[in-house]
Amino acid sequence: MSKEQKRTELYELGEFRLIERLIGSFDASQKDTIKGVGDDAAVISCGNSDCMVVTTDLLLEGIHFDLTYFPLKHLGYKSVVVNLSDIYAMNAKPGQITVSIGVSKRFSVEELDELYAGIKLACERYGVDLVGGDTSSSMTGLTISVTAIGRAKADEIVYRSGAKINDLICVTGNLGAAYMGLQLLEREKRIFQSNNAAQPKLEGYDYILERILKPEARAGVIDKIRELGVKPTSMIDISDGLSSELLHICKNSNVGCRIYMEKIPIDEQTAKMASEFNIEPIVAALNGGEDYELLFTVPLSGFQAIDGLDGVHIIGHVVDAMLGAYLVPPTGEDIQITAQGWNALRKE
Amino acid sequence: MSKEQKRTELYELGEFRLIERLIGSFDASQKDTIKGVGDDAAVISCGNSDCMVVTTDLLLEGIHFDLTYFPLKHLGYKSVVVNLSDIYAMNAKPGQITVSIGVSKRFSVEELDELYAGIKLACERYGVDLVGGDTSSSMTGLTISVTAIGRAKADEIVYRSGAKINDLICVTGNLGAAYMGLQLLEREKRIFQSNNAAQPKLEGYDYILERILKPEARAGVIDKIRELGVKPTSMIDISDGLSSELLHICKNSNVGCRIYMEKIPIDEQTAKMASEFNIEPIVAALNGGEDYELLFTVPLSGFQAIDGLDGVHIIGHVVDAMLGAYLVPPTGEDIQITAQGWNALRKE
Repeated sequence: MSKEQKRTELYELGEFRLIERLIGSFDASQKDTIKGVGDDAAVISCGNSDCMVVTTDLLLEGIHFDLTYFPLKHLGYKSVVVNLSDIYAMNAKPGQITVSIGVSKRFSVEELDELYAGIKLACERYGVDLVGGDTSSSMTGLTISVTAIGRAKADEIVYRSGAKINDLICVTGNLGAAYMGLQLLEREKRIFQSNNAAQPKLEGYDYILERILKPEARAGVIDKIRELGVKPTSMIDISDGLSSELLHICKNSNVGCRIYMEKIPIDEQTAKMASEFNIEPIVAALNGGEDYELLFTVPLSGFQAIDGLDGVHIIGHVVDAMLGAYLVPPTGEDIQITAQGWNALRKE
Repeated sequence: MSKEQKRTELYELGEFRLIERLIGSFDASQKDTIKGVGDDAAVISCGNSDCMVVTTDLLLEGIHFDLTYFPLKHLGYKSVVVNLSDIYAMNAKPGQITVSIGVSKRFSVEELDELYAGIKLACERYGVDLVGGDTSSSMTGLTISVTAIGRAKADEIVYRSGAKINDLICVTGNLGAAYMGLQLLEREKRIFQSNNAAQPKLEGYDYILERILKPEARAGVIDKIRELGVKPTSMIDISDGLSSELLHICKNSNVGCRIYMEKIPIDEQTAKMASEFNIEPIVAALNGGEDYELLFTVPLSGFQAIDGLDGVHIIGHVVDAMLGAYLVPPTGEDIQITAQGWNALRKE
């Protein structure tokens, strides 16, 4: 055995194994902590029938956003929305946010005005209050940390862990659009960098650009489903790609799944841009990430209510864990689902 | 008028005016938001007699800590404690935290183990649960964002705004120690940088070093005072220096104050190190920052209970706002109190 101190690189573990290693040994001691790490948001009892749900996200310049094409107002809006999406994914309603920023002196007050105009717009649109935060200089670039707080009745909260065999698997909206929007922006950036006179070609792709630059959280869908008498058995928001989120639900619910390729909703612009990049649209939908759609399961008895509901797509069903998680193509063999979504600790 | 777009530098406004500009126009729309921005923590109603209090802090490498002398385990511990201090300053009890980190690949998994060992130690010592967070790579250095959530009965929460004329002004512990500990560490770093063979001279200063590297939050003091039948009328934690915090209480409570120079508690090591640096110890106590002691006011009727209480010092009293905020030296003229504490948006 070497006596040298061991050095393990972060990418060797990847995000999920790293988190497990760092906080796996932490105990929960507070009796009002109903759910800690491991879902879209933590759940804390209010002491009555209500719970608070809490989620937080850290957005770092150069990792999560590139200011060469990301307008600051959009960035402010998005940094709020991605947190609200986690609150909705618990079947809760967001009420408050805190926003902390670290800014290098490269930024002017007027630029921060833009960032906060976007934050304010999101607060107004989703009916949440900005209740705190922290403002600091940074040595480098822009750092944004948002925490969102929501509320729900304890018995209405939906976790990742409740999916049952034969449940239907549903997604809202469509998938892969944000990923293809990002590819388009990155391509035009490269072209501009090699030729400063080049004008970016973005026409006809406004929808996929909006999906990456100004996403919305699925605020109303679950309300609509509730009105139809259906409650999801499990739910998660799609931030790292459908594959990754499906595997979270399968693991946490101890089930498997079958997803039908032709049922996965993909927008026309997503498909068109994917073909420009010689990517199969289904790959963008499965692994793209940043969709902020909701993935949820409902009992089979909810089929009539859900089927044909605007903005909701039934893409498959839950099976026994022993049967694994597979994508079923129109012809040919089933394809095992693996998480190839965004890795926040990738090597390069 | 120039048609050029105006560019205002961040340091021109400073932290408090910048925050006012960025979020001054935000409205609170949620009826459960009891207190938003402007105190040590936000206060959200639970819908019964309880409230949740929420605070957040962003710690950035090179701005808030220097890893050349800051052990990662201590940093983890401190990043939790500084948030808990804000919860105690509301007269609430912390219950949960979330921790987000951004790390560059300069860091190994083993180094993050150290950071989280410190976070865990703080969680255990203060009885709080880690319930969430976010882990990401960063382009540069280490970013830590902690949010703490606490709980209190609505009628027990103490704001910055409740100080009344004739109230006694009290502080816990002693002041200026963390600042002098920081000066010592910075001096030894400079010496080491000019001569790599130099050994740091830190003997005899363990207390002030602990105050900067591993501070504690004042968890028990307010309980003790409550047991004596006294409730603070206003409270704040001392993170930016006594002067700055006094002015917050005066402004929020619309009062003035008189503080007696010889009453301000200063540890022996603080005084000794200050003399090595040719700094008046009182200056370190007034403007030093990072003390994480509690500054609070109590009604004059509480004098008997508070006077002589271990770890609590009566340093002055509240006066009419028209009389201003002044430091009273043993001899000579009163000195107006001005905020010269730490400016998170300083120019250099």
